[in-house]
Amino acid sequence: MPLLPTVRSPDDVKRLDLLQMKALALEIREEMIRVVSEMGGHLASNLGTVELCIALHHVFDFLHDRLCWDIGHQAYPHKLLTGRFPAFPTIKQHGGISGYPNRQESPYDPFTIGHAGSSISTALGLRVGDRILGRRRRIVVVVGDGSLTSGMAFEGLNHAGAVKEDLLVVLNDNNMFIHPSVGAMSRSINRVRMAPLYLDLKHEVYHLLRSIPGLGSAMGKGMDLFRDAVRRIAVPGMFFHEMGFRYFGPIDGHDLDTLIPALREIREQPGPILLHVTTMKGKGFALAEKDPVKFHGPSPFDPEDGTSRKAGSPVPYTKAFAASLIEIARTDPAVVAITAAMPDGTGLVEFQRHFPDRMFDVGIAEQHAVGFAAGLQESGLKPVVAIYSTFLQRAFDQVFQEVAVQPLGVTFVIDRAGIVGEDGSNHQGVYDIAYLRPFPGAVLMAPRDATELSGMLRLGLGESRPAFIRIPRDTVPEPEIPAPRAPLEVGRAEILRNGPDGAILAYGAMVQPAWEAADRLAREDGLRLCVVNARFAKPLDGDLFERLAREQPFVVTVEDHVRTGGFGSAVLEALNARGAETRRVHVLAFEDAFIPHGARRLLLRLAGLDADGIARIVRERARAIPSRGAGRSG
Amino acid sequence: MPLLPTVRSPDDVKRLDLLQMKALALEIREEMIRVVSEMGGHLASNLGTVELCIALHHVFDFLHDRLCWDIGHQAYPHKLLTGRFPAFPTIKQHGGISGYPNRQESPYDPFTIGHAGSSISTALGLRVGDRILGRRRRIVVVVGDGSLTSGMAFEGLNHAGAVKEDLLVVLNDNNMFIHPSVGAMSRSINRVRMAPLYLDLKHEVYHLLRSIPGLGSAMGKGMDLFRDAVRRIAVPGMFFHEMGFRYFGPIDGHDLDTLIPALREIREQPGPILLHVTTMKGKGFALAEKDPVKFHGPSPFDPEDGTSRKAGSPVPYTKAFAASLIEIARTDPAVVAITAAMPDGTGLVEFQRHFPDRMFDVGIAEQHAVGFAAGLQESGLKPVVAIYSTFLQRAFDQVFQEVAVQPLGVTFVIDRAGIVGEDGSNHQGVYDIAYLRPFPGAVLMAPRDATELSGMLRLGLGESRPAFIRIPRDTVPEPEIPAPRAPLEVGRAEILRNGPDGAILAYGAMVQPAWEAADRLAREDGLRLCVVNARFAKPLDGDLFERLAREQPFVVTVEDHVRTGGFGSAVLEALNARGAETRRVHVLAFEDAFIPHGARRLLLRLAGLDADGIARIVRERARAIPSRGAGRSG
Repeated sequence: MPLLPTVRSPDDVKRLDLLQMKALALEIREEMIRVVSEMGGHLASNLGTVELCIALHHVFDFLHDRLCWDIGHQAYPHKLLTGRFPAFPTIKQHGGISGYPNRQESPYDPFTIGHAGSSISTALGLRVGDRILGRRRRIVVVVGDGSLTSGMAFEGLNHAGAVKEDLLVVLNDNNMFIHPSVGAMSRSINRVRMAPLYLDLKHEVYHLLRSIPGLGSAMGKGMDLFRDAVRRIAVPGMFFHEMGFRYFGPIDGHDLDTLIPALREIREQPGPILLHVTTMKGKGFALAEKDPVKFHGPSPFDPEDGTSRKAGSPVPYTKAFAASLIEIARTDPAVVAITAAMPDGTGLVEFQRHFPDRMFDVGIAEQHAVGFAAGLQESGLKPVVAIYSTFLQRAFDQVFQEVAVQPLGVTFVIDRAGIVGEDGSNHQGVYDIAYLRPFPGAVLMAPRDATELSGMLRLGLGESRPAFIRIPRDTVPEPEIPAPRAPLEVGRAEILRNGPDGAILAYGAMVQPAWEAADRLAREDGLRLCVVNARFAKPLDGDLFERLAREQPFVVTVEDHVRTGGFGSAVLEALNARGAETRRVHVLAFEDAFIPHGARRLLLRLAGLDADGIARIVRERARAIPSRGAGRSG
Repeated sequence: MPLLPTVRSPDDVKRLDLLQMKALALEIREEMIRVVSEMGGHLASNLGTVELCIALHHVFDFLHDRLCWDIGHQAYPHKLLTGRFPAFPTIKQHGGISGYPNRQESPYDPFTIGHAGSSISTALGLRVGDRILGRRRRIVVVVGDGSLTSGMAFEGLNHAGAVKEDLLVVLNDNNMFIHPSVGAMSRSINRVRMAPLYLDLKHEVYHLLRSIPGLGSAMGKGMDLFRDAVRRIAVPGMFFHEMGFRYFGPIDGHDLDTLIPALREIREQPGPILLHVTTMKGKGFALAEKDPVKFHGPSPFDPEDGTSRKAGSPVPYTKAFAASLIEIARTDPAVVAITAAMPDGTGLVEFQRHFPDRMFDVGIAEQHAVGFAAGLQESGLKPVVAIYSTFLQRAFDQVFQEVAVQPLGVTFVIDRAGIVGEDGSNHQGVYDIAYLRPFPGAVLMAPRDATELSGMLRLGLGESRPAFIRIPRDTVPEPEIPAPRAPLEVGRAEILRNGPDGAILAYGAMVQPAWEAADRLAREDGLRLCVVNARFAKPLDGDLFERLAREQPFVVTVEDHVRTGGFGSAVLEALNARGAETRRVHVLAFEDAFIPHGARRLLLRLAGLDADGIARIVRERARAIPSRGAGRSG
């Protein structure tokens, strides 16, 4: 008789005895492997938090107490224990449950999250609010060792440790977040894990004591015991001690017999507490234990042998970028690459294989990644920062101060720009044009295919000002559009086909569907459209766009980005500044609302941002023309 | 014979002996007090870095080696020693030298800066670049204790400590940046300063040793020596030790006899090194030593008694905000306020006087400030984050994830929005409309005067979504515009006066000059203009603006913000979405270029953003109308 279906809420977890909880852990793992192998999703990290989730829900009451996850991609077991077992097979699918904590989804999720490092800050806010309002409940944070490299997590720890509020921070130390960490603090944490191997401080103490007259000799055989004593105090958790936290641990995060009493003991203790829990990514699933990177966020796979279920293998933009950068770096030794903990996601792991000394993974530290890149550029190198659109938001001010103001020729490859799909509202990369466009001197571009991506990389690397290349979470178009290529030049768009019946100005990933729409409209409606590959959102090709706005019966701009402040908005600004008419310009973009999770293609279709949607708007516009030329002015 | 005028470059500092350097220190202090008392500027922090600057330039060669300041408002002595003595009286004035390190200004300034916490990252980038390029030079960072609370500084330390590159970080610990720090790490640093008073760890060690059989008794009279030994190793700089740095100090930052040998000794040492230097804000100027907060960035003052030279005292927006918030908080106990190390600059110091338990200064940690506010709001309070426009950039992703996505009713008062004046390009608050507008659900508003500011505060506090109120670094208009007040309602603008000859849509601080321009144009040109107080940049009053665009011969939008993505751009978007004509809309805003330092009123005038400039554009537009009504369409 399986237990998991009977767990309708955490109350049901509280009733279980240890043996039952251990059985439940097995079932949770089975269910997660079953669903993720079919649908894709995060896996290895969730296999690591099974016992921790059970223990937390067994000991606390999170309908009253509050559980704040950091990032939250490791909260699947929590979802299974908080009434979301029936909906679990819908995870990350459109209309289904989210892959992250989501406050619209469950009263057990106080915040909707997805970006790292913020949990300590929000939890401290909850706690201080509770105190002021006279409410008594426990606030618990679960944060991974990877998240702690984020500056925001440090800011939160620093404040929490100073004000001495009641706060339990559980450090879920899986010693291997996405890639082995490069941070000094991770080493510090690791020293705790590897305590028997840690000797530095012991030796320092030893030698110092020997140098004190009359003391060194008095130590005698007590020295070993003494060493241990000093280490017990001075080493584990010294970092957290310095941050004002009381440190407990490390304890085995897969051992419910240890976890539950530890949480019970700590539950009632006042002040800021850090409980160090060591867990194993992929725990309980041999394939994932062996290769936790592959099983961090796998596509659907065969649970028997781990092989991917994806048919064929069209080339993702990410891969095309990496291949192109490697090729460029072969002949240009100044090219270096930077990632913030995403060597796999950005494709740079491949670059690293070729140029191990020219790739820098700085951990989940986007702010530093950009500042560091600025320094590399100023020293004479050509740094390429590969980063997801949504995570570049974390380095907004560094893009401003460290790069744009100087200005320095740092090249940004903004991956996952536009709809990212299943990761949902917090990860959609649909704001970057708007937030980067205001910075003077920035070059914003987006390629129509792999060939143009390569050209734009070379262009960006040659610039002495910041260059941003946005690429989607999609495969490159194959075959490429059979139009002759205009030379790539900053601020110049490319006319792919000409026609007098209306113009489509498409940006980046939208060029391909715009071309398809034009093809179809030519076949089905006999419309001869002008299709423009905009290439640049800044500087815009104002001359061309002004001419089209004046000559064409209508202009449709297309972008996978929000309407507010985006590419279409830039076109309106440019036309207005040139005194041209904009009434016949139609801006096709995402409306002003957060976009939930769902397949990328589905979400694009729903917003009209595919060939069908573009064709529909063009037809509407074409029909609305009163008579050729009547609407023209300017 | 004064020395300072003879110091044409740091080479001249290298030639001086200790006595001469001490004399030079006196002269630098005199010069800074003389100039800042006349012109205003940063003072107390610069009085604290005099000897440090002399020692650094005496020991290093920063035309070859690189000196990276954090923030850089404390670099005046460095400017005086690097050829900028003749230009020093022009500091922060339009056309004069900048108040911060500036790479366009001097080969001794590798980066143009102003925001905190970034120096370690850029310096590490320089160092790694040097290594790859085979260049040998020393990279030195000077960072204040306040800057270290910034998450970005932590990210930089964490990476630098891990990769073990040669890097010298000088911690300029003045133990009192703008306000006493609240961070745990500052306490940790302070414990070092106050080492004789620090007992915690000693006691822990003592009791633990006593509990080891056979060891405790063996300690005998060696105990005191032992205690010191443990403290020497375990206490000073343990935080930095954990971050992978070798720690030296603390040493007296005003004692050249100590500083110079220490820097010489450290200069050739490899790996990441932290030198802890203690300095005193205001050193050598009794008034500033006594009140370093007042003399942090004073307006012109009398150097004899410190009294301000400013005549009269019109009320700054900052002060009006504080007064209004205090009044609201009196009757609403849920209102709390948050600042990131700017209690004086944001006026919250006054709020704190009234409600000490409801004000939170989190240090230079904007990311945490916003996450913390989100938690406070979710707990049931009504948080107001008071922050400068330029520093809110640092919390861009937190505004997105922690507030907008949820959504939570956090109220932001964006001070120093628009031109900040003398602080220059890195501090101009001219991007906030553009970067906040894309977030779904955000309410963006700007008041025309103190009365409206108060109303907007109440409005924001009543919202369950993020509300942003932008106020300028200026005084409130007195008397207020004599127009009846329309009720304040989200998304509704206010018509201040009506007329058929053209419309001015003004946002926030631009309403007053727009009104003045309309007054003058009525008197001098007989133009009867419609003047609209836009109130909201999001949601816009689309109905009204569409009607005006259709009915009026022209519309001029006015904002103290860049054109790209700003208020005028929002008007163009709204009109376009409604199918209205935009050719008769003129967007008056800052052009696409960084705006250097200079007096606020001067910079506004140069951009045409004052009554004169507005009147000029309106006249042009009025003259360009071919015949009444001819241009109308829509």
